[in-house]
Amino acid sequence: MDAILTLLCKDQPGIVHSMTTAVLACAGNIIENQQFTDPTTGLFVMRTRIETSESLAKTTKILSEGLSHLNPTLEIRESATKKRALVLVTKESHCLRDLLYLQELGELPVEIPLVLSNHEYLRELVESHGIPFRLLPSGKSEAETAIRQAIVEHQVDVIVLARYMQILSEGFCAAYPGKIINIHHSFLPGFKGAKPYHQAHDRGVKVIGATAHFVTADLDEGPIIEQDVAHVTHSATPEDLVSLGRDIERRVLSRAVKLFAEDRIFIAGDRTIIF
Amino acid sequence: MDAILTLLCKDQPGIVHSMTTAVLACAGNIIENQQFTDPTTGLFVMRTRIETSESLAKTTKILSEGLSHLNPTLEIRESATKKRALVLVTKESHCLRDLLYLQELGELPVEIPLVLSNHEYLRELVESHGIPFRLLPSGKSEAETAIRQAIVEHQVDVIVLARYMQILSEGFCAAYPGKIINIHHSFLPGFKGAKPYHQAHDRGVKVIGATAHFVTADLDEGPIIEQDVAHVTHSATPEDLVSLGRDIERRVLSRAVKLFAEDRIFIAGDRTIIF
Amino acid sequence: MDAILTLLCKDQPGIVHSMTTAVLACAGNIIENQQFTDPTTGLFVMRTRIETSESLAKTTKILSEGLSHLNPTLEIRESATKKRALVLVTKESHCLRDLLYLQELGELPVEIPLVLSNHEYLRELVESHGIPFRLLPSGKSEAETAIRQAIVEHQVDVIVLARYMQILSEGFCAAYPGKIINIHHSFLPGFKGAKPYHQAHDRGVKVIGATAHFVTADLDEGPIIEQDVAHVTHSATPEDLVSLGRDIERRVLSRAVKLFAEDRIFIAGDRTIIF
Amino acid sequence: MDAILTLLCKDQPGIVHSMTTAVLACAGNIIENQQFTDPTTGLFVMRTRIETSESLAKTTKILSEGLSHLNPTLEIRESATKKRALVLVTKESHCLRDLLYLQELGELPVEIPLVLSNHEYLRELVESHGIPFRLLPSGKSEAETAIRQAIVEHQVDVIVLARYMQILSEGFCAAYPGKIINIHHSFLPGFKGAKPYHQAHDRGVKVIGATAHFVTADLDEGPIIEQDVAHVTHSATPEDLVSLGRDIERRVLSRAVKLFAEDRIFIAGDRTIIF
Repeated sequence: MDAILTLLCKDQPGIVHSMTTAVLACAGNIIENQQFTDPTTGLFVMRTRIETSESLAKTTKILSEGLSHLNPTLEIRESATKKRALVLVTKESHCLRDLLYLQELGELPVEIPLVLSNHEYLRELVESHGIPFRLLPSGKSEAETAIRQAIVEHQVDVIVLARYMQILSEGFCAAYPGKIINIHHSFLPGFKGAKPYHQAHDRGVKVIGATAHFVTADLDEGPIIEQDVAHVTHSATPEDLVSLGRDIERRVLSRAVKLFAEDRIFIAGDRTIIF
Repeated sequence: MDAILTLLCKDQPGIVHSMTTAVLACAGNIIENQQFTDPTTGLFVMRTRIETSESLAKTTKILSEGLSHLNPTLEIRESATKKRALVLVTKESHCLRDLLYLQELGELPVEIPLVLSNHEYLRELVESHGIPFRLLPSGKSEAETAIRQAIVEHQVDVIVLARYMQILSEGFCAAYPGKIINIHHSFLPGFKGAKPYHQAHDRGVKVIGATAHFVTADLDEGPIIEQDVAHVTHSATPEDLVSLGRDIERRVLSRAVKLFAEDRIFIAGDRTIIF
Repeated sequence: MDAILTLLCKDQPGIVHSMTTAVLACAGNIIENQQFTDPTTGLFVMRTRIETSESLAKTTKILSEGLSHLNPTLEIRESATKKRALVLVTKESHCLRDLLYLQELGELPVEIPLVLSNHEYLRELVESHGIPFRLLPSGKSEAETAIRQAIVEHQVDVIVLARYMQILSEGFCAAYPGKIINIHHSFLPGFKGAKPYHQAHDRGVKVIGATAHFVTADLDEGPIIEQDVAHVTHSATPEDLVSLGRDIERRVLSRAVKLFAEDRIFIAGDRTIIF
Repeated sequence: MDAILTLLCKDQPGIVHSMTTAVLACAGNIIENQQFTDPTTGLFVMRTRIETSESLAKTTKILSEGLSHLNPTLEIRESATKKRALVLVTKESHCLRDLLYLQELGELPVEIPLVLSNHEYLRELVESHGIPFRLLPSGKSEAETAIRQAIVEHQVDVIVLARYMQILSEGFCAAYPGKIINIHHSFLPGFKGAKPYHQAHDRGVKVIGATAHFVTADLDEGPIIEQDVAHVTHSATPEDLVSLGRDIERRVLSRAVKLFAEDRIFIAGDRTIIF
């Protein structure tokens, strides 16, 4: 079995030693190992990939016992088991298309059991990929209830807001910490309000970008997962910026979902640690 | 004579035709020509490089008369005449060093007749390059008077704030529109207040950048000239970010000064057009 | 009518003046204008967008007559008329998918009347987008005859090799100069032979890229249209490089086709000039 | 004491466990740890930063004994001990200036005990920074003897070819494996022969770059340490490319030297692993 272990705990002496002792106890061989101590929070995080002839259940038992004195957040899964992503969209298709394309190509190791939307607009596109599409009911509360049901029904690991143009309630966000990924445009300097690409154009920015981040209840923009930018010139129209922005958004969101799918993201306070 | 013409006027039919007619009238040959109509302001801008056997005075006369019906802002200079840059610094040397280095190498076609500072800290560095260094008097008003005198005394074309850590008064800024270039850090998202690199670290940004812009009296950050960014990871300490930021700042400021020195920047409202 | 004029001729005095005179003669207003003199070949190229109330036929007549003394290569088309792109593929879908996606989104102003392939593999994908798919016959000569027929039949403006894994004959390439666009991977340093991404991995490159270029009969790689790169680390497997390479290839090819579709590419010797 | 341990050995089970056991044995605390198994060579490399109250001598003894069964290449040094870099130059100053600037600023943790050159050209610059400058004798053999003497005399850790325009003999290269860092330009595609920037211009490349690499006796270009690129357009003259190339070269070489100075580079066959 090839397995991914992720561990997060308070930094303290002997963590790596405890991990390697436990891995040896299940006759495991470490294939990859990355670790980091976050200076801001004092948290230690580690991602370890092992090979072992033991079962997942036995490996989990040995590791949990061997590391319990660290009081860690510990997760162990078989590498072959794909995470399940619920995708929420509205009308814009660029992010959704990239997720579907990369997932079909085998580059994005997730299953997409369902796409939810507050519009019928993208039903045909989704269903043409053999993936169920479901229209959300009107009303924020009704919609969120439907999303929660879908999460349970499909044992969803991550909720991907692929240009879902509704603000989720604080209660909803708080219920899924570190499980909701959003994408939005980013500028130097930032702009508030409507039509941000037009504002960016009117200020003559030379760089535009996009940020994929976790959604949190109390932060305007939660822990940042991935960012990218492109250079632009004065000759770009607002429409050019929108078009280029779409290109950046789809890439950044896909990369963030891939990082999640491979257990490469850790949250330490307001920051992420990415392996 | 090789000359650079820059023209800015309200967009209207026949501008290029008028320019080419006037250039033919002084037996000039167009070597380079770039033009742009800014959709936000309706301004037309053009940068033309010509060769002519006429003198600068005669060329200026013919072009001014031939284009006067456009009511333009028109500038003509010999390409060989370098712009004169007054550099203001405080204690940090990275931007100053890059300007001095590129100017010595011949890549930055400016003369630096004087460096002013509110600290003695960089005197030795400046003087070792054979450039006069002058300490500004205490007091914002006294300092600005001294800067204004230096501008007149040295026929300065552009004031470069190479990490000059004093805010210039509104009156000073208003007196030199489009003539003061500043550099500062930029982040996605932006941060207010002190220690911005530490704030950026604590929010786990994945991209940091710098912006060179003109200083204006009424805008927090005037028209943007140049921006650049670098990718960073969670493993960068705040000190790493500061260090990387310095590297971006010096490159972005030097590029902005070079663009100015080559008459490649036009201001249209809050935007720049860069050729 | 909104029209795009492109002009290429030997550099000589008075070109811009002749153009603006001719544009005035058809009551045209210049919306955009870009020009460049290539120092290597001594060629002058200009792309001009005009508005005029005259018809295309009359505008073409006036401009052709007014510029005939320059002996130019002159093309005039209505901006609204889309170029027609014939796409050739084999088995890999990433470039094709991006072209289809961007064309549907309206960001790539081309018509794709037909996709040709030497394999059945991508038929379903193409037809699901409502575009005819045709299998090429076996044998290079038979295949090229079929491609030539399709070019005539569909009045094709550009042939896009979207990972078409067959080498075209010299005769075919020579018949369509500046009309065949190819995409391939690029590395620092370059690698010859099979499995280039594996070779790049074994040499530990830190940057990989892709190049879109015109295909010529006598040059290993014709005039370069567009290039882009991505940074990689030692931890990337050969498969990661292949995957990242696909991402760069699709973006670079789509950008090159868009530049062609907007008449922004001029060929001067072995170089392109891109507006 | 804050120490950096670097370990390279054949990949085998239990390496990390052995390391952590040995670190505990010297009452050390792991501050940073990075490891990687190179799939091409089967080598395991690890860079570990520890804090310990033991002396360097005792720490070295405990670790060497505790890890000896792995038959590793093991190095241990106090973080505060700077590496010593011998810099070789000819006439171009851009790389040298960046090294001097960053070293003075404290961002490049090296000592530069001496600069050697086959020209007098840069003596003044070097000596103005308080660093000894020595002219190499004529003749490749005589020059290399002088370099070898300087290496011994100044206990040099790394030889930096900062635009040193002489080819070193095979014997010299073989004597300092993994100790000689060179910088050169890189293009897509590559160009052979003289005036590479002019060749790149004539082929209309859209990207230029630079590569820092170790020098080896038998490889045209040894293991790559760092690469970077910049985008260029048709309007760049060959001189512009040369100028931009200098900017990339100085940054890439400085980064490579910094990586070396911080023990972040491992060589595995023809590749580097960079932490």
